[in-house]
Amino acid sequence: MADWLEKWAGYTRMTEDALKAYLLDDDAIPVKLRETMAYSLFAGGKRLRPALVLASCELCGGEAKTALPFACGIEMIHTYSLIHDDLPAMDNDDFRRGKPTLHKQFGEDQAILTGDALLHGAFEIMLDGCHDFTGVNAVRRIAHASGMRGMSAGQWVDVTLTGTGFDEATMRYIHLHKTADLIRGAIGAGADVAGASKEMLARLDTYGQEIGYTFQIVDDVLDVEGDSAELGKRVGSDEGNHKTTFVTLFGPDGAKEQARLHTARALEMLEPFAEKGNFLRELALFLRDRKH
Amino acid sequence: MADWLEKWAGYTRMTEDALKAYLLDDDAIPVKLRETMAYSLFAGGKRLRPALVLASCELCGGEAKTALPFACGIEMIHTYSLIHDDLPAMDNDDFRRGKPTLHKQFGEDQAILTGDALLHGAFEIMLDGCHDFTGVNAVRRIAHASGMRGMSAGQWVDVTLTGTGFDEATMRYIHLHKTADLIRGAIGAGADVAGASKEMLARLDTYGQEIGYTFQIVDDVLDVEGDSAELGKRVGSDEGNHKTTFVTLFGPDGAKEQARLHTARALEMLEPFAEKGNFLRELALFLRDRKH
Repeated sequence: MADWLEKWAGYTRMTEDALKAYLLDDDAIPVKLRETMAYSLFAGGKRLRPALVLASCELCGGEAKTALPFACGIEMIHTYSLIHDDLPAMDNDDFRRGKPTLHKQFGEDQAILTGDALLHGAFEIMLDGCHDFTGVNAVRRIAHASGMRGMSAGQWVDVTLTGTGFDEATMRYIHLHKTADLIRGAIGAGADVAGASKEMLARLDTYGQEIGYTFQIVDDVLDVEGDSAELGKRVGSDEGNHKTTFVTLFGPDGAKEQARLHTARALEMLEPFAEKGNFLRELALFLRDRKH
Repeated sequence: MADWLEKWAGYTRMTEDALKAYLLDDDAIPVKLRETMAYSLFAGGKRLRPALVLASCELCGGEAKTALPFACGIEMIHTYSLIHDDLPAMDNDDFRRGKPTLHKQFGEDQAILTGDALLHGAFEIMLDGCHDFTGVNAVRRIAHASGMRGMSAGQWVDVTLTGTGFDEATMRYIHLHKTADLIRGAIGAGADVAGASKEMLARLDTYGQEIGYTFQIVDDVLDVEGDSAELGKRVGSDEGNHKTTFVTLFGPDGAKEQARLHTARALEMLEPFAEKGNFLRELALFLRDRKH
């Protein structure tokens, strides 16, 4: 395994161990709630956002373990957003990561409440991890990145506009907030914990925004390529969904070119970090070139 | 109007002005999301929890305005919990405070997302209000009071056990967490902001727990008395709901006696505060004797 992938695997292990210790071994949390939270939290996610928190903290001279509560918190926020997104009143998805969605498995009421509990729990674990104001800055950044002007705003506009075509500005608004903001929040929070300089923070914030766009563009491309490959045998929730994406606006090749441009800008931001930026460099290329 | 009621009205005005300024005038929040948040937030609630935050801060020697972000945050958490509680997959209520519930008015997807946004927003407003560690203590307390071991746990057990009878210990667990914890969190957070002593905090925490129980017991009594008064003409969500309550366990008179005992204990906690405790004293009696 390449060095940087081993590093990612290490970040994933740290995050999963911390999540298990915080959530699953605590008798003060109802036992069945722990089961449903575990069902969604340990469903084989890539742990991209926690890796960004921990890597960014190390890049800025901090110790990864001091950033762990924020890595866990942001993964819990990401997971809750997927659970609520899958609900019948929203995307109405029956499967996620190859197994039934939480509401298919345990019912809608439990899916709503499990999502709520994960969002509450994210702030609990992050606030318990605040020992000084570097931590407070990190949790405040994550609150805003995921909040009413960030991810939650992007979700809102995406859901309330579904089914209609819209212009490039609106599409960029949705992608920026629904997807990129939490990725930016992750990388910024790690830097906050390490007490990074304003200049470092600004560079990493732009890096986060650019890989966030790339992540979403590649998702859109893969969705279309997956749809063509499986044409005729697929009955999915995307059926009849004619949302505006980078692909509908620029075509598949144009969208891939956009992903290359956003990635190039992300890599540019890492230049002053020289070799220490290698993990984030490899990660940006991986997100651009991934096939699933 | 009695002095203490005027004081309550003043706390309500302060809270509502701050909520409006933070939520409604900010163009960075999608305009339609602001509308749905306002629909639920300004539906004529009693503002009990904000009043507790502000009164407790003053009682412990602080200025009410320093506790305002926490008063607003806790009201937003309370409001989100009602919106999600009303959803078809949960209590399936069509009306709240005399008007259609949010999902009846705007659809289930918007109700789910508005609840989520309010929970996000609560942490945003509280974290923006943290200028030192007294604020951090307050937001941490509210996070735990409302979280996976608090209100969210109580909701979970209440919803997943609905329809079955259960014992007194389980019923007390639900009431303590679903209702009393947020009330305790409110009064504790105000004291945190004022930098109250451990002894003061312990007394106010017990006061909060006791008025929390009283609040729920009186709700149960009024539910039954309302049901008898309107027998035959009411088709509500409580139909066929045979939950265990203080009334089913102790009868209406037994439940009222329990409310008196809990209130007496709450008043006992206020003794060292002498006259300065008058607002909280009147409030405890009001919650015990209210008729709706």
